[in-house]
Amino acid sequence: MIDEERPLRFGANYVPSAGWFHSWLDLDLDRDAVAHDLDDIASLGMDHVRIFPIWPWIQPNRSHVRARAVADVRTVIQLGAERGLDVCVDLVQGHLSSFDFLPSWMLTWHQRSIFTDPDARAGLRCYVEELVRELAPEPNVFAFTLGNEVNNLWPANATRFAASTEWAQDLVEVVREHARADQLAVHSLFDDAFYAPDHPFSPADVTTIGDVSSVHSWVFNGTSRIDGPLGPATTSHAAYLARLAGACGAPDRPVWLQEVGAPSPDIPTGAAPEFVRRTVEAVSAVPTLTGITWWCSHDIDRRLADFPEREYDLGLFTVDHVAKPVAHALREAVESARHTKHEEPQSIPLPTDIVADPSTRSLVAPGSDFHCAWVALGAQPGGSRSFTPPLITPTTIAQ
Amino acid sequence: MIDEERPLRFGANYVPSAGWFHSWLDLDLDRDAVAHDLDDIASLGMDHVRIFPIWPWIQPNRSHVRARAVADVRTVIQLGAERGLDVCVDLVQGHLSSFDFLPSWMLTWHQRSIFTDPDARAGLRCYVEELVRELAPEPNVFAFTLGNEVNNLWPANATRFAASTEWAQDLVEVVREHARADQLAVHSLFDDAFYAPDHPFSPADVTTIGDVSSVHSWVFNGTSRIDGPLGPATTSHAAYLARLAGACGAPDRPVWLQEVGAPSPDIPTGAAPEFVRRTVEAVSAVPTLTGITWWCSHDIDRRLADFPEREYDLGLFTVDHVAKPVAHALREAVESARHTKHEEPQSIPLPTDIVADPSTRSLVAPGSDFHCAWVALGAQPGGSRSFTPPLITPTTIAQ
Repeated sequence: MIDEERPLRFGANYVPSAGWFHSWLDLDLDRDAVAHDLDDIASLGMDHVRIFPIWPWIQPNRSHVRARAVADVRTVIQLGAERGLDVCVDLVQGHLSSFDFLPSWMLTWHQRSIFTDPDARAGLRCYVEELVRELAPEPNVFAFTLGNEVNNLWPANATRFAASTEWAQDLVEVVREHARADQLAVHSLFDDAFYAPDHPFSPADVTTIGDVSSVHSWVFNGTSRIDGPLGPATTSHAAYLARLAGACGAPDRPVWLQEVGAPSPDIPTGAAPEFVRRTVEAVSAVPTLTGITWWCSHDIDRRLADFPEREYDLGLFTVDHVAKPVAHALREAVESARHTKHEEPQSIPLPTDIVADPSTRSLVAPGSDFHCAWVALGAQPGGSRSFTPPLITPTTIAQ
Repeated sequence: MIDEERPLRFGANYVPSAGWFHSWLDLDLDRDAVAHDLDDIASLGMDHVRIFPIWPWIQPNRSHVRARAVADVRTVIQLGAERGLDVCVDLVQGHLSSFDFLPSWMLTWHQRSIFTDPDARAGLRCYVEELVRELAPEPNVFAFTLGNEVNNLWPANATRFAASTEWAQDLVEVVREHARADQLAVHSLFDDAFYAPDHPFSPADVTTIGDVSSVHSWVFNGTSRIDGPLGPATTSHAAYLARLAGACGAPDRPVWLQEVGAPSPDIPTGAAPEFVRRTVEAVSAVPTLTGITWWCSHDIDRRLADFPEREYDLGLFTVDHVAKPVAHALREAVESARHTKHEEPQSIPLPTDIVADPSTRSLVAPGSDFHCAWVALGAQPGGSRSFTPPLITPTTIAQ
C-alpha cells in the first residue's frame, strides 16, 4: 500500500493549440503543428496523451468510416511514438468542452438515442471495431476509451440505467475483441454518475465496466464553493472520487484520474500551482491510483467562439507554446508523488449504497454531511497542507 | 410570350457518385472522381450545376471558416469551368435528402435557432460573406443560393413569418454586397411555403426575395396520388408551382425550376422518361421560366445507409457513370422545349390571397378544388399529352 517508487502514469489530455479539435479536418496540412504540441507535452516528462478524434467526421454516414480520417488518427499516434508518448484513443466524441459532435444520421429527421437505438448501436459497433482494429497495432497505444464523458450526451439522447450499462458493456466488448491484450478498455463518465440522484448512469458503470475505474475531477461541480481554491475539500476532490470508486466496486481495482484541471474562476490563476501540488499529493496517496492525465495540454485560442469561459485557459501551455506555472508545478508534483511515503489512512463507511440505490447519491455529493466528514478526517490537524484521503468502505447497513 | 429560341438554362443538382456529399471531406483525394462526374453532366449538353458545400465542415466554429474547405469549393467550380459548366453555389447546407448538417455551435448545449438567434446570425453572415467573397470572382459562378430548402430546418429551429423573411432578406443582402452584379442571389424553399397553412415561411419569401423565384417540384408531396405518374396533375406540377409563383409576386419575375425529379415509387422507373418529357414540356410553356435544374446528377451508392428509399435512385447517372433512360429523355425534352411554340394559356384567379392570409394555403395545395380546376383547364381535350399551363392571377376578391 505504501510504495516508494510507484509506477504512476503521467500525461495530458491533448487539446491542439491551433484550431482546437477542428484541426482534425486539416490534419494533413497541420502535421507540424501537432508535432510541436506533442514536443511541448513530452518536454514536461509526460509519458502519454489522451486524444480525441471527432466521431461524425470519421463516420459521416452510418455505413461509411473514412479511411483517411482513420489514417489521420494513426498519424497523431505515430507522432506521439516519435516523442516517447503512449496514447489513449477516445472513440465516440461525442461531447467535448460543451460541444456535442453527432453525425447527421443521429440528428433531427434521423433523431435516435445513441444509447438505445438498435441502428445507432450497429453503427457504433462498426465504428469502434474499425478504429480499434486499425489502431490497436500501433505499439504505443495503451488504451481505448469509449468516448469522452458520454453521459453528457444525455438528456439529448434518452437512456435508462439498464440501457446505459448495456451500451457500455457491449462496446467495451467490441474494443476487447479487436484490441491487444495489453491495451486497456475504458468507459468514461463525468461525476454525476456518483453524485446526481436522477442521473441514468450508475456508479457501477465506472467501477465494473472496462479495465480501470476512470474518474474525472472538476471542482466547478460545487466542491470549490465549500472551502475555496486551496481548501482541503477542493484539493482532495480527485482523491475523494478515487476513494468513492473503490467503495463502489472491487477495492483493489485500478483507478485512473483521467481528467483533472484547474478551472477559473474556481481556481484563480495565482492559486493554480498550489492547487496542482495539493491535488496531486492527495490523490496519489490513493494506492489504487495508476495514472494522472491533466486537462489539458494547451489553451484554446480566444479567436474561437462560444466556449464556456473556463475552457479557454485550462492548458498547461499557451497557444504560443509557453509552459504556464501550472505545468512546472504539475511536473514537480508528479515527480514528488512517485517517491512519497503515505500515511495509513483512516476509514469511513458510505452512508448509503449508491450502487443499489442511486437515488441516494446526493448523500455523498460534494457538500454532503458524508463528504464533509470525509474531508475532516483526511485533513491533518494543525493546518498542515498534507491530506491523507480516508479509505471509503461500503455501507454496513444496506447489504 | 412565345419564343422559338428561348434561352433556357439546363443543368443538374450535382450529387457526387462516390461518397455522396461526404466526399467534400476528402476532396483533395477525389478530384478525379469529381471530374468524372462533371464529365457525365457535361455530356448531356447541360450548361450548369448546382453544388452543395456542407456548412458545418466549412465553419466548424462560429468564428472559424476553414480556408482549405473554401479552396475545395473553388476547385469544384474550376473543374466545372473546364467542362463549360456554370455553377450555382448553395451556402447553408443545412438540409440535404433528409439529413440536417448543423455545426456543434448550434446543437444541444448551444441550441439556438438558426433563424432567430443573433449570434447564429452573426456567424451566418460571416460564413456567407466569406464564401461569396472568395468564390464570386470565379467567372463561371452564376448564382448563390442561401441554402437548400432551409425551411426544412424548421421546426428543429423555431421561427415565425417575420423572422424567416428577415433572415433571408438579410443574408441575400450579404450575398449581393460581395457577389458580382451579374450573379444571382437566390433563396430556396420547398413547397410547403405555398401549400401548408401553418408553415412559418411565406410564399412571398419565394417571390420577392432575391433575383428569381426558385421552385422545387416534388410530386411525392401528394400530387402523384391525384392521377398517377403520368396524369396531368402530376406532370404539370412544376408548371403549377411556376404559375403560383407568378401569382404571388410580380407576374414577370423570372422563375427557376431549381429542383425537379422523378421519385419512385410515385414515378415507376418505366414511366420516368415520359414523366420527364411531359414535365419539361408543361413547365417550359411558362414564359417566365429561365431554367431547369434536375435532381439529381448521380444515384446514391446503396452501401450508404439511412437515406429515404426514394433518394437512392434519383440520378440521371448510376454510380458507375451510366446514363439512365431519364437522362436521354431529359436532354431531348429540354432541346425540344427550346424550340417549341406554346399555345396562349387560359387564365384562372387564385381563390384566396395566400400571401396576405397564409392560413388559407390549403385552398391551393395539390388536390384542392382550385388545383384540380387549374389542371382541368390546362389539359387539352381529347387526351393529347400536351398541357398548356393556365396563367394564375391574383385573387380578385382579397385586394
